[in-house]
Amino acid sequence: MELTHPLVLDGWFKEISDEYFPGQAFSLRVEKILYAKKSKFQDVLLFKSTDFGNVLVLDGVIQCTERDEFSYQEMITHVAMFAHGNPKRVLVIGGGDGGVLREAVKHPSLERATLVEIDDMVIKLSKKYLPKMAGSYQNEKVNVVLGDGFKFLKDCASKDDAQKYDVIITDSSDPEGPAEAFFQKDYFTLLYNALTPRGIVISMASENIWLDINKLRDLRKTAAEVFPVAKISNCTIPTYTSGQISLLCCARDANIDVSIPSRTLPRDEEIKLFRYYNSRIHESSFILPTWADQIIYHS
Amino acid sequence: MELTHPLVLDGWFKEISDEYFPGQAFSLRVEKILYAKKSKFQDVLLFKSTDFGNVLVLDGVIQCTERDEFSYQEMITHVAMFAHGNPKRVLVIGGGDGGVLREAVKHPSLERATLVEIDDMVIKLSKKYLPKMAGSYQNEKVNVVLGDGFKFLKDCASKDDAQKYDVIITDSSDPEGPAEAFFQKDYFTLLYNALTPRGIVISMASENIWLDINKLRDLRKTAAEVFPVAKISNCTIPTYTSGQISLLCCARDANIDVSIPSRTLPRDEEIKLFRYYNSRIHESSFILPTWADQIIYHS
Repeated sequence: MELTHPLVLDGWFKEISDEYFPGQAFSLRVEKILYAKKSKFQDVLLFKSTDFGNVLVLDGVIQCTERDEFSYQEMITHVAMFAHGNPKRVLVIGGGDGGVLREAVKHPSLERATLVEIDDMVIKLSKKYLPKMAGSYQNEKVNVVLGDGFKFLKDCASKDDAQKYDVIITDSSDPEGPAEAFFQKDYFTLLYNALTPRGIVISMASENIWLDINKLRDLRKTAAEVFPVAKISNCTIPTYTSGQISLLCCARDANIDVSIPSRTLPRDEEIKLFRYYNSRIHESSFILPTWADQIIYHS
Repeated sequence: MELTHPLVLDGWFKEISDEYFPGQAFSLRVEKILYAKKSKFQDVLLFKSTDFGNVLVLDGVIQCTERDEFSYQEMITHVAMFAHGNPKRVLVIGGGDGGVLREAVKHPSLERATLVEIDDMVIKLSKKYLPKMAGSYQNEKVNVVLGDGFKFLKDCASKDDAQKYDVIITDSSDPEGPAEAFFQKDYFTLLYNALTPRGIVISMASENIWLDINKLRDLRKTAAEVFPVAKISNCTIPTYTSGQISLLCCARDANIDVSIPSRTLPRDEEIKLFRYYNSRIHESSFILPTWADQIIYHS
């Protein structure tokens, strides 16, 4: 029997939200629905698109497509990991599709990447339908914890520095649903306490400068109440709303400028390792259009 | 009687093209159709959207919305005009909505801005429905020519330098329809011959790195057969396909690096004059993700 999903009509998936992006909608043509079911935590839809490869949708919002996922996965991972001088221990909150793990293991300094994902179904389905993203689950440096990221971080606070993290990447879904807590001050405090002294965090901001820029400003302000350094980086990705997503990158040490890589690779290595990230893109991703810079940093 | 248009269904305008962006579509919710008619040259649709202000659509493709037009208009104008040291004479091919004129007259060095638009209807409708864009038609430095840009440029070739242009901005619609000739080598030759020796040209590339990047590469290569300097700049704009558009910027003088402004304004002046453009965005707009840089400049 052919699978169906309420958001797939006449062969098109339509992403629409009166609350988060009123008046605009983005559609992808569906070749075949691969999976459609509610997990314990969220509505999961996986389909093969005609032009963007396989697509993962959680609670009606596109999480990744095989054609453009590298942009987001590389930027959320490498902006944080290159802002750090020598990242050995990395924690990923969410990220069940495995894309961040794939990028993190490219750093020779990495000793251990721990991924805390609440929804086992996302991991299982990604291994089956997004094999290019989920290929690093077998890597010996990778450690998977099934559970709530918020709770996991709470347990980190009492550990000594050797058990803390150099980089923490929050690769969550949007604030509605299971990821709601990841956009509050309490969460940034937990992140702060789970970091080594020169540690870096980066979070999917679930916003961009063209959507609700005031919400993006407020999120950064909330983080800046906890972290001495909190900056917004942007990457382009056509299947996210407005064709881009903002990342919020923070440092525990006031002397670290996260917008400048601590290390750079020779150009030929960058070309071999990355499709999107390079040291110049790292810096330029933090440069905002005039109006956005004014609202985010001066209002 | 209420106006209708075949691309407005159930209160939404849907931008869809199997040829130019297969498998993806962008929609805007329509509050009211303001105008819908075929002009002598193209299908013209103007509607009031619920969240992006008034929207101009030519041949089914969104040309501008009041909410985000400043990004494109500022970048196509100021990247070229700041790449030039002292732009006095500016020529705009297309640009009937008036947005480029609005930006060009912000430069005190400007003596004359000539706009050559083939479709008078676009100018008339913009004055009526896009008043924030079309407000500079009254400026005494502005000169409007109704006619074909290609033919206009041919007549420039035989003029002396004092009658040529420091900056030429091609703000056309997409290559299908009346703008087709603007994407061929002959056109770049005409541009070259209509420029002063240190002149700069910039063109809407009708592409971006996420769409048909090979077509973008080929367009740049075509321009590079004529101009010693030909570089790709990018700006984000949520209502263009993939949320961005590429601009092709060329210089007649091999010693001019168009990616670096020839002049910069103090920050407080930038803030007063521009919403998107600033000198740092100018430079960063030319920095490409690794894969795009490889294809465009090294393949």
